[in-house]
Amino acid sequence: AEVKKIAVIAGDGIGPEVVAEAEKILKRAEELYGYSFETEHALFGGIAIDEKGTPLPEDTLKVCKSADAVLLGAVGGPKWDNNPKDLRPETGLLGIRKELGLFSNLRPAVIFDCLKDASTLKPEVLEGTDLMVVRELTGGIYFGEKFRREGESGQEAVDTCVYNVKEVERIVRQAFEIAQKRRKKLASVDKANVLETSRLWREVVNRIAPEYPDVELEHVLVDNCAMQLLRRPASFDVIVTENMFGDILSDEAAMLTGSIGMLASASLGEGSFGLYEPVHGSAPDIAGQGLANPIATILSVALMFRLTFGYDKAADAIEKAVAEVLDAGHRTADIATDKSKAISTTEMGDLIAAAM
Amino acid sequence: AEVKKIAVIAGDGIGPEVVAEAEKILKRAEELYGYSFETEHALFGGIAIDEKGTPLPEDTLKVCKSADAVLLGAVGGPKWDNNPKDLRPETGLLGIRKELGLFSNLRPAVIFDCLKDASTLKPEVLEGTDLMVVRELTGGIYFGEKFRREGESGQEAVDTCVYNVKEVERIVRQAFEIAQKRRKKLASVDKANVLETSRLWREVVNRIAPEYPDVELEHVLVDNCAMQLLRRPASFDVIVTENMFGDILSDEAAMLTGSIGMLASASLGEGSFGLYEPVHGSAPDIAGQGLANPIATILSVALMFRLTFGYDKAADAIEKAVAEVLDAGHRTADIATDKSKAISTTEMGDLIAAAM
Ligand SMILES: CC(C)[C@H](C(=O)O)[C@@H](O)C(=O)O
Ligand SMILES: CC(C)[C@H](C(=O)O)[C@@H](O)C(=O)O
Repeated sequence: AEVKKIAVIAGDGIGPEVVAEAEKILKRAEELYGYSFETEHALFGGIAIDEKGTPLPEDTLKVCKSADAVLLGAVGGPKWDNNPKDLRPETGLLGIRKELGLFSNLRPAVIFDCLKDASTLKPEVLEGTDLMVVRELTGGIYFGEKFRREGESGQEAVDTCVYNVKEVERIVRQAFEIAQKRRKKLASVDKANVLETSRLWREVVNRIAPEYPDVELEHVLVDNCAMQLLRRPASFDVIVTENMFGDILSDEAAMLTGSIGMLASASLGEGSFGLYEPVHGSAPDIAGQGLANPIATILSVALMFRLTFGYDKAADAIEKAVAEVLDAGHRTADIATDKSKAISTTEMGDLIAAAM
Repeated sequence: AEVKKIAVIAGDGIGPEVVAEAEKILKRAEELYGYSFETEHALFGGIAIDEKGTPLPEDTLKVCKSADAVLLGAVGGPKWDNNPKDLRPETGLLGIRKELGLFSNLRPAVIFDCLKDASTLKPEVLEGTDLMVVRELTGGIYFGEKFRREGESGQEAVDTCVYNVKEVERIVRQAFEIAQKRRKKLASVDKANVLETSRLWREVVNRIAPEYPDVELEHVLVDNCAMQLLRRPASFDVIVTENMFGDILSDEAAMLTGSIGMLASASLGEGSFGLYEPVHGSAPDIAGQGLANPIATILSVALMFRLTFGYDKAADAIEKAVAEVLDAGHRTADIATDKSKAISTTEMGDLIAAAM
């Protein structure tokens, strides 16, 4: 089979541990399906600050750019939290998104049956929740001009939120296409009653919508969406929104599933290139102890298979293996009700690889 | 007693009905406590668009400016939703906030015992939730320059988010002072890892914090706050944040209480002037049928008594009367489990007035 190049960024905290298990899954897929992966490791985030003096070294960018896909563990930790801006892991994150042109962030929020009691929402409200937030990732207030200046009443700070028609169009089209492959419902979230960027956003959505007549479209104001996610989470299918709103709403949506430690995400650019990572963070408090749950990272591999490589069968196999292992009652500490029976990070990885 | 002037804006939808009940409470307070209120009605929102061709007529502004406080019902409705910007109720709302200098929006989110099952959150998670969102209301991306322009890739829209030190200082000080009178915990919410305005915000908070050594301060990133509100709502006391984040988080917080139809809010300026309104909207679908719940508006009068007039005893009496009437099992349709036993808007107002 064609060799697929994967840039592997372990990152900080529990990153290296969960990525190691995801690599087991890659190996297992090679054995089972005859695929061929070439992985190259690269430094990024806190560890890159420590070893190279920058969160996103040139080398790392090169490795990513020459790869077909990127697998990322997690970055950041208190150690770097008070660094100056250029020496912070987040700066690396924003940089890698921009440099790799990852304009779209997909965050599926689904309920794992075995975890539905972990949610703070009532089970009957959650029932059937299976939504996907499509967040614009390289525009808006994240990347607009930011500066300080002296104003009439002393120092002021400025952030600029900019969107052009093309930026909105490509993410909205992608969201419509994703909706077509799902339950055919799209909620476009904006603040069109206040923001000019939102009015442009809504115009573009309305112009494009007739090309997807099979998709039922609703416009939802961002404040209302924050409420409706709590009131009727199961009624959403695909939610598309701009960068800042997507940051907030995707975290809210992930948390309400109660399964945040299990959720995968994809950041996509033009073509089939993508960066895949768990939704959870680097959890420095439990790093290096074999306590981390590798499932979100393993499911990120499944997403990579599906979205970048078109390896649907293997993606299905991974997702089924995860379900099977959970159904059999195996739990890492974070999701175990009886902590004394919890298995380790590597045990979980081994079980899932074996179940494929 | 000194005559207090109250501008009364009934507004649209159920606005007139709920405001009429709140006026009963004003009358009752005059009888019981010897206060003297002079109310003046003014047009605002959709009805002002229809009758005066603008959502915020000059006359209305004058009435508000010469008053000690404003009581507002609700504005807006589908009738005006597709109007051009200048002829939309929201434009009036933003205008009145700016013109009256209402830089601070207080939204208490509390659980009403009789409604705790109405929440989609588990009762054990909600237990003890009693928080207040302090939202900056006249700055940030709501009021910064907004425009369209031709960019390199076609048309683009721009919104500008600006905050100066003074704007941040006054709202943050107010939040600290509110926290001092409550459980002495303040969560300042920003996105300091991305936004320059947030970094300024955080600097100001940190500079001021030592003046309030009795208040326990935490900085929370906005995405994390959207999650923590779901995970540990009871752990929050006062949350202070900028305009756009406050819009989203205060709605999320209100919804999670399950009591959104019962929540009051205050918008304050310099001195003791304030505008008081229910958190709920104009509910055009049930307007004019005597179905609306007047409790949130009545509780807004209690807030007005406490925050603008310093009539604490009467404020207590209103709040106790509401609790008593609810404890006795009286319900409007929106909060009734047995709809056939629901009472009307005016019946609810009468009962609360009588219970004072
Ligand atoms: C770390 C931060 C810059 C980042 C963001 O806001 O995009 C994170 O919250 C995320 O959602 O990936
Ligand atoms: C109607 C709208 C402009 C307004 C806002 O965003 O401030 C509303 O959502 C609110 O919270 O009062």
